[in-house]
Amino acid sequence: MTQPFRDFAAVRAAALTLLAPDADMMAAARERDLQLTKPTGALARLEDCVFHLAAWQRRAIPRLDNIHIAIFAGNHGVAARGVSAYPAEVTVQMVANFERGGAAINQLARLHGATLSVAALELNRPTEDFSVAAAMTEADCLAAINAGATAVPSSCDLLVPGEMGIGNTTTAAALAAALYGGNAASWVGPGTGVNGDALASKIGVVDAALGFHAAWLGDPLEALRRVGGRELAALFGAVLMARLKSVPVLLDGFVVGAAAAVLARLNPTGLEHCLAGHVSAEPGHRRLLAELGKPALLDLGMRLGEGAGAAVAIGLLKAAVACHAGMATFAEASVSQRG
Amino acid sequence: MTQPFRDFAAVRAAALTLLAPDADMMAAARERDLQLTKPTGALARLEDCVFHLAAWQRRAIPRLDNIHIAIFAGNHGVAARGVSAYPAEVTVQMVANFERGGAAINQLARLHGATLSVAALELNRPTEDFSVAAAMTEADCLAAINAGATAVPSSCDLLVPGEMGIGNTTTAAALAAALYGGNAASWVGPGTGVNGDALASKIGVVDAALGFHAAWLGDPLEALRRVGGRELAALFGAVLMARLKSVPVLLDGFVVGAAAAVLARLNPTGLEHCLAGHVSAEPGHRRLLAELGKPALLDLGMRLGEGAGAAVAIGLLKAAVACHAGMATFAEASVSQRG
Repeated sequence: MTQPFRDFAAVRAAALTLLAPDADMMAAARERDLQLTKPTGALARLEDCVFHLAAWQRRAIPRLDNIHIAIFAGNHGVAARGVSAYPAEVTVQMVANFERGGAAINQLARLHGATLSVAALELNRPTEDFSVAAAMTEADCLAAINAGATAVPSSCDLLVPGEMGIGNTTTAAALAAALYGGNAASWVGPGTGVNGDALASKIGVVDAALGFHAAWLGDPLEALRRVGGRELAALFGAVLMARLKSVPVLLDGFVVGAAAAVLARLNPTGLEHCLAGHVSAEPGHRRLLAELGKPALLDLGMRLGEGAGAAVAIGLLKAAVACHAGMATFAEASVSQRG
Repeated sequence: MTQPFRDFAAVRAAALTLLAPDADMMAAARERDLQLTKPTGALARLEDCVFHLAAWQRRAIPRLDNIHIAIFAGNHGVAARGVSAYPAEVTVQMVANFERGGAAINQLARLHGATLSVAALELNRPTEDFSVAAAMTEADCLAAINAGATAVPSSCDLLVPGEMGIGNTTTAAALAAALYGGNAASWVGPGTGVNGDALASKIGVVDAALGFHAAWLGDPLEALRRVGGRELAALFGAVLMARLKSVPVLLDGFVVGAAAAVLARLNPTGLEHCLAGHVSAEPGHRRLLAELGKPALLDLGMRLGEGAGAAVAIGLLKAAVACHAGMATFAEASVSQRG
């Protein structure tokens, strides 16, 4: 199969040649919204979601009939440093759980009628421990980016990228710090549940990584290669390919956000097709969303990964689209407008 | 048809003889949650919702197969004082819109497979202008309470009460102030969109009502009769009957919250079966939820009424229940637990 991107240069070039949203379709959706039997603005952020979907789906009345959830799993050399509350074998065990339909994301996909793909990215070959080496070679990083790009369906109303990878909130913290500055303590959190000495050790590992790679972190793709991981590279590739295909994206938590941020740093307009589905309990995520300028739809304290927070938020987008598409207009319903 | 409550004394007696939630079923749900293939607490507030539903449905694994949305509509004498951006005839027009399936709540009910009932409460006979008289006689108020109580299905997994009534954020502000104190300005907001002089006038109307009825507002039911409205009395009756039937309730915005608060003031445990679906843009609602001690699931700036905010939040409860009921346990999936 032809890979979407031949080399890093092709990735960079793609990130700099992005289409704008469809202003006409957004305007048509806004015009229809004004006619619906409700006070103007009464559905508030749900209306904004409709306009967003209209602009990126390039349809006056957006649809959510074909939603795809794409999960990427990777293993991290840094997990051997004891940064997670769970052993590294949980990554492959959870991939099997996804494939058998037993995880939270499976239930959410079924609830919303979404398709689900799971890409296990060389789980037997963890990345290098990025506190002492680059996590990936350029070839490995490119392969993961291409795996992500390839997972985006050719036609899709919404993409929800998700992830699994023991140790990957450590990776996300390192990548976020590389992209936006700040020391490890300002980005590292408990992840699946480390605290006390283990949390201090997690911070130490990230500070070591930031020191080791400092000279190269000004380049977002190089930061991804050095302090990222395979599933983060795939998430970046999926978000980029969604943009190239004009597929709107609903972002999940800290790991997805850090990976997507690579595109925002390559091109300030790179994430215009993305909505933030939720803000996770991982404290770095709130800071990251502030950097991205994306207010979250949900703030429920979730911290599961798997794309689960965004998958819960699918329900909000479905509600928004159902109202926009199905409501009567003032004229149709013979309802008086403002006095 | 026999009315659920013969007189105000029967309402008061019912409000003081409330069943507790089922602690065993809640404990069983918590125990199952600990076994599911996710870090403990990773679904956060969604888990709390599951425990709540288990306790009130009195089932270890709650269900959401039968959800009922009950809309109550009323007209307000105070609307003649120009407190709303819309003319009073919109109430009856919107009821027709509900009945034809054209409103936002119809789309949301369809999306979630919920049943929807609409009770138009003597729309040709508005309540009295409560700034100069009691809004309702005891007989009128009781009839509305009974209309609300009667709308609760005999068996139901979740009740979502909603409302329509031009002028009813004025009524809700007056009732909230009567129940919790504070002057009109601390409870009145723009509603469907009044501002400037019209907003000042709305505040003045509520302050006049609070002054006129001051001597009687210490009694929550009397406050409901004097500064409430028919749909608010019905909402109170529905929330009370749901509690008597152990049906969990998902609360909508300011009007529903003010009506439900009557029960909280009659009995401090009266609203234990209720979750707050959303916090509306109406500023009084945030204050009211703080008084009720109920954090909202959604904060999207919505201000539509109709039960729409809570109906959007149904999706969160469905997601929570789907995960709880459908996920594999660590043992079933052979996933390792914490290291």
